Amino acid sequence: MKQDIAFIQREELKAKPEPVSLGFGNYYTDYMFVMDYHIDSGWHDPRIVPYEPITLDPAAMVFHYGQAIFEGLKAYKTADGTIQLFRPEKNMNRLNESCARLCIPQIDEQLLLNAIKQLVSIEKDWIPEGEGMSLYIRPFILATEPHLGVRPSHQYKLLVILSPSGAYYGSQLSPVKIHVEEHYVRAVIGGVGHVKTSGNYAASLKAQEEAEEKGYAQILWLDAKENKYVEEVGSMNIFFKINGEVVTPKLNGSILPGVTRDSVIQLLKHWEVPVREARISIEDIFAAHERGELEEVFGSGTAAVISPVGELNWNGKSIVINEQQIGQLSQRIYDAITGIQLGKVEDPFDWTVKVDRVESVL
Amino acid sequence: MKQDIAFIQREELKAKPEPVSLGFGNYYTDYMFVMDYHIDSGWHDPRIVPYEPITLDPAAMVFHYGQAIFEGLKAYKTADGTIQLFRPEKNMNRLNESCARLCIPQIDEQLLLNAIKQLVSIEKDWIPEGEGMSLYIRPFILATEPHLGVRPSHQYKLLVILSPSGAYYGSQLSPVKIHVEEHYVRAVIGGVGHVKTSGNYAASLKAQEEAEEKGYAQILWLDAKENKYVEEVGSMNIFFKINGEVVTPKLNGSILPGVTRDSVIQLLKHWEVPVREARISIEDIFAAHERGELEEVFGSGTAAVISPVGELNWNGKSIVINEQQIGQLSQRIYDAITGIQLGKVEDPFDWTVKVDRVESVL
Ligand SMILES: Cc1ncc(COP(=O)(O)O)c(C=O)c1O
Ligand SMILES: Cc1ncc(COP(=O)(O)O)c(C=O)c1O
Repeated sequence: MKQDIAFIQREELKAKPEPVSLGFGNYYTDYMFVMDYHIDSGWHDPRIVPYEPITLDPAAMVFHYGQAIFEGLKAYKTADGTIQLFRPEKNMNRLNESCARLCIPQIDEQLLLNAIKQLVSIEKDWIPEGEGMSLYIRPFILATEPHLGVRPSHQYKLLVILSPSGAYYGSQLSPVKIHVEEHYVRAVIGGVGHVKTSGNYAASLKAQEEAEEKGYAQILWLDAKENKYVEEVGSMNIFFKINGEVVTPKLNGSILPGVTRDSVIQLLKHWEVPVREARISIEDIFAAHERGELEEVFGSGTAAVISPVGELNWNGKSIVINEQQIGQLSQRIYDAITGIQLGKVEDPFDWTVKVDRVESVL
Repeated sequence: MKQDIAFIQREELKAKPEPVSLGFGNYYTDYMFVMDYHIDSGWHDPRIVPYEPITLDPAAMVFHYGQAIFEGLKAYKTADGTIQLFRPEKNMNRLNESCARLCIPQIDEQLLLNAIKQLVSIEKDWIPEGEGMSLYIRPFILATEPHLGVRPSHQYKLLVILSPSGAYYGSQLSPVKIHVEEHYVRAVIGGVGHVKTSGNYAASLKAQEEAEEKGYAQILWLDAKENKYVEEVGSMNIFFKINGEVVTPKLNGSILPGVTRDSVIQLLKHWEVPVREARISIEDIFAAHERGELEEVFGSGTAAVISPVGELNWNGKSIVINEQQIGQLSQRIYDAITGIQLGKVEDPFDWTVKVDRVESVL
């Protein structure tokens, strides 16, 4: 089904913030993409409209039963002014995985990707230029039907909003201190941890808050069944370099399959650096450190790309990794991925997708 | 802090639906209670206003990170026209438990209970009279701050909406067929299953949908760690009568502490019927049936009060309980609790709370 995307222009554009003051997720651009779903008519009325508040009945199901999913990707501006996305089809695909798990009707991935390209093209002047800067793209779906019985909603709204962003974790590539959580749990096999649904993040806030009080920037989650195996960080997957080999937790149904995670694995294989997806116990990580074999630890995610870990705290014990310095391999991966994203180095994997200027719509 | 509740009257009242067509959660009354929170000013501006849509920024955190909690209780009209609530302080208390787990600022329980009484009093003509009918009360809180970084919101909205309701599960006290879920999981210890947050319900939809396709009305959840121990039903706690003794799963941190559950336990103790909270494996339930000792099974919850279970399906095997008939004890508990709620029988526990007519506010 081919659907044209309508465009409603706004009278006046907003003033753009100074790049230095951006932070993450504080500013939104002039326009957003919206599309509605009704059980009788399917997804319909795709449109780019001025960024504005949305109005919902107080009984809208999203407020009560949490049917809400989202994605996160970025648009980058290269030195020659080209605008590009990084593996956006992976995000479209994951959005539909989230839909399936949360009983939300599937979306047309091609239509949504086109809509994102058009929206980004219209908002091209909002893409900040500079190290670690980008235009963050947030597609999300929420249940809008007013109904208080527990069942899948019959109405939904899909939106895409854009937020010009500096680096997610403040200063880039400075190693973070991470607390390994033993009491709280993020997700369990059979649950919804492998998809991007809002409840996963709500469930993580308390542990995050307590870790911050103890001086840690992030949580490393363990598996829910045995409190033993490493899963992932707040909004990053995790990698360990042990004695020359890189290991990362195997996707098991409770870990989010990160786009950056997949890119790191492909890069390492391309470079012929040994890499393995496995079940990894936190004891083994601490034992590797004990033996002097834990060389690097880093998180991977769209927000920070690569985030080196300088300290791990578990079970009352802290270990310092690589003298709190950025590891060589971490730096190499960061440079490679951001290089591809910013068009500074060759893209042997065809990961980037160019956004053509959409003059017609304006 | 004593705060006065403002009242904004609407011009015209809605037409009230026919009692027979009510169903559950389909109609909302003329007014709602609203209160706002800002990190700088705390909870403020409590007010009763016309029921109307709420307007939120698309970046409002509830849509993205699921900070949303709720409660459910009911107002009943007795034969002499008295309006009463059932143990509402338990719901206020549980709301604050949910707040604490989800990093939402605590509310003033007394203020909220007063607000509910005022609202119900204003809407007294919306309370349907008749078997199984009541005015459902839904307090809920959502994160309203526009922000895309994962952290607790700095702004919230608390609302109370009212919905005149027939029986939740259609015809009252007809035994339901329940599927014991082996693949999907609702909650795990260390997670948020013991509080009423929206994500728990979103996570349950898929299993519920698949069970319905197989002809079952509800899911019985097992524990997430071993897939072995009985937890609860979709929105009910569960009780088994085995050889004269009533057992129900012990509150373990992943089960919701139901107000009805607590009332059933107190009633049974009062009647000197043996009752025990324990870890119960599903094997043991099926074994008790095998021995001919599984006498009754029923769910307990605000919506249906008592919901007899006529069939349990687990691991490819179905067992029929009490010949698909309502058990004697189930019926006795149902009659006792609904009798107290409707003021038909004495209330030895002081469970009911009268709502005084608030004439002044009108
Ligand atoms: C829970 C979680 N894990 C991992 C990631 C990393 O995924 P990606 O590399 O696709 O950004 C994210 C962020 O999207 C996340 O929210
Ligand atoms: C998950 C869950 N369990 C149990 C219950 C029963 O609790 P209550 O008796 O307080 O209604 C509910 C309903 O509130 C529920 O949502």
